Amino acid sequence: MSTGPSRVAIVGLGLIGSSLSRALLAAGSQVAGWDADPEVRRRARALGVATEVFEEAAQAVPGAEVVVLAVPVGALAEAAGRIGGSLRAGQVVTDVGSTKVGVAEAVHGALPEGAIFVPGHPIAGTERSGPGAGRAELFAGRKVVLCPADARGPAGEAGAAVERVARMWQAAGAEPVALSPVDHDRIFALVSHLPHAVAYALMATVWRAESERPGLLTLSAGGLADYVRIAASNPVMWRDVFLANRMPVLEAIDAYASELDRLRELVATADADGLMAYFEAAAEARRRAVGEAPASTETHR
Amino acid sequence: MSTGPSRVAIVGLGLIGSSLSRALLAAGSQVAGWDADPEVRRRARALGVATEVFEEAAQAVPGAEVVVLAVPVGALAEAAGRIGGSLRAGQVVTDVGSTKVGVAEAVHGALPEGAIFVPGHPIAGTERSGPGAGRAELFAGRKVVLCPADARGPAGEAGAAVERVARMWQAAGAEPVALSPVDHDRIFALVSHLPHAVAYALMATVWRAESERPGLLTLSAGGLADYVRIAASNPVMWRDVFLANRMPVLEAIDAYASELDRLRELVATADADGLMAYFEAAAEARRRAVGEAPASTETHR
Repeated sequence: MSTGPSRVAIVGLGLIGSSLSRALLAAGSQVAGWDADPEVRRRARALGVATEVFEEAAQAVPGAEVVVLAVPVGALAEAAGRIGGSLRAGQVVTDVGSTKVGVAEAVHGALPEGAIFVPGHPIAGTERSGPGAGRAELFAGRKVVLCPADARGPAGEAGAAVERVARMWQAAGAEPVALSPVDHDRIFALVSHLPHAVAYALMATVWRAESERPGLLTLSAGGLADYVRIAASNPVMWRDVFLANRMPVLEAIDAYASELDRLRELVATADADGLMAYFEAAAEARRRAVGEAPASTETHR
Repeated sequence: MSTGPSRVAIVGLGLIGSSLSRALLAAGSQVAGWDADPEVRRRARALGVATEVFEEAAQAVPGAEVVVLAVPVGALAEAAGRIGGSLRAGQVVTDVGSTKVGVAEAVHGALPEGAIFVPGHPIAGTERSGPGAGRAELFAGRKVVLCPADARGPAGEAGAAVERVARMWQAAGAEPVALSPVDHDRIFALVSHLPHAVAYALMATVWRAESERPGLLTLSAGGLADYVRIAASNPVMWRDVFLANRMPVLEAIDAYASELDRLRELVATADADGLMAYFEAAAEARRRAVGEAPASTETHR
C-alpha cells in the first residue's frame, strides 16, 4: 500500500468503480464519481461510495490526477466521449476493461490532444454487480495489468502517466504487472473468458435437461454450485468480452474442445490408467494455480 | 431430524463415512467403525470419529441396525465380501456410492442369504477427503437418494429395511428421495459427473497452456478458482465413477459438446443477440438451481 493520489475521477460506479473508489477513499484520496444510471448515482451517494457523485461525467474530471473509465469494454468509447471535452492537456486516463487489443485506439480517438491514456485491467471481481457490491478490499493482493507500450499521449509523458496509474492501483492494494495487449487478450481468453464460456455451456446443457425432466436440478450438489456462481456473472459484460476478444476466445474454446474429446475417449475406451493420468495433470495444474495465486482461491475454503 | 438408530456400523471412514458417523453420534447412536487403511483407523480413533474403531471390518457388524458401506463404488464388492460372513439374517446393509446401476448386483452377491441391501447415495461432499475432513453437518438439508425398487433381500422385508435406512439418514439431517438406479445414474451424469469432466478438461487445457507459457496461471482470477476447487476432488473416486457410469457420462459429454459448439458459433458469427439469449438461459437455469436447492450454493456466498 502507498498513499493514494490526491484526487481521482471514476466514471462508472459498478462493482469495480465503487470498489476502487472505496479503496482510494481509505488511502486518503478524494474521489469524484459519476455513473450513467441515475439510480446508481443515487445509491452511490446514499452509500457514501465517493467524496462526491456528480450529475454529469464532465463535472467529475477537473483536478483529477487520474481519470478511471470503469465501464464495460463495449461502453468505453462512449464514456471517453462524455469526458473528452473536459480533459486538460497532461491529464491521465485509464480503463478497467477485460480486453485490451483495440481499446487504446477506441478511447484515444475520443480524447483531446494532450491527454494521456494508459490501458489497464484489474484482475478481480465477483459475480455480483452494482455499487452495493463494492468493497475496499476487492483489489488487495490482486494483480492489475497495465499496457505501458500502448499508453497514448504526448511524447515523453507516457512513462510518467503509467507510473501514476500504477501508484494509484498500489494505493488500492493491487500489484501492477506489464503486458502487451495481445498477450493480455490471449492469456485472459484462457484463464478467464474460457472458464466463463465453459460454465455457460454447462448451464445451457443442464437447463435443456431440466426442461425435459423438471426437478432434475433439485438434485444438484456442490459440483454444479460452482458453475452456478460463475454463470451468475453480468451477461452484458460477457457478451461484450466475447465479441471484443473473438479470435483468442475461439482458439481457447477449440483447445478446450480437444481436451474434452481426449477425456471422452478415455471414458469411451474405459482407460483407467489414462483417466488417472488425466486427473493427475489437472491436480498438478491446481497445485500450480493455488501455490502461485493463493488469494484467488481463498474465499472458497 | 429424528432419533438415530441405537447402533450403526460404518465400513470406510473417509469424508462421507466419518461425517455420517459424527452426525449419528450427535443423534445419540453408537457407531462401530472400520477402515481398510490402518492410518485412517488411527486418525479416526484420535479424532473420536466413532464410538469404537475396530481392527477388522467383521468386528464392527454385530448388533448394527444398519451397516453402511462408505467406500468408493470400485471398492464396494470387496467391502461387502469382508463383512458378508458376519452378517445375520435380517441385518440391513446400505451404501453411499456415486453410481447405482449394477451396485445392487455387485453387493448382493457378496452378502449371505437373509441380509437385506438398500442402495443409497447421499448428495453431499466437498473436495476434501479423509476422516479429518468429516463434519456432522455435512448432510444437513441435503438429499439422499435411495433405490427402494432395487432393495434386495427376503420377500416382505425390503420395505421395512428401506424405512430403517431412510430414518438413519433423517437422523443425520438428510431428506430421503426415491429414484430408480437408471434414473439416478442419468441424472447424476448430468448434474455431478459432467461438471467434474468439464472442470478436469478445463484444468488440462490451462495446464497445457501454462507449460507453453510459464506464469500464465499466476494471472488467473475468480473464474478459474472455482474449477480449481472442483478439480481438487479425489481422482480415484472420479476414475471409478466415470468407469462405472460410462454410457450416461458419454451421453452427457456429447450433449455438452453440442451446447459448447452452439456457443462457439455465436462467438464466431459475432451474434450479440444470440449470446445474450444464451447467457439469459444460463441465468434462468441458475435461478432454478438456486431457488430449489439453496443449501448447495450457500457456502459460496
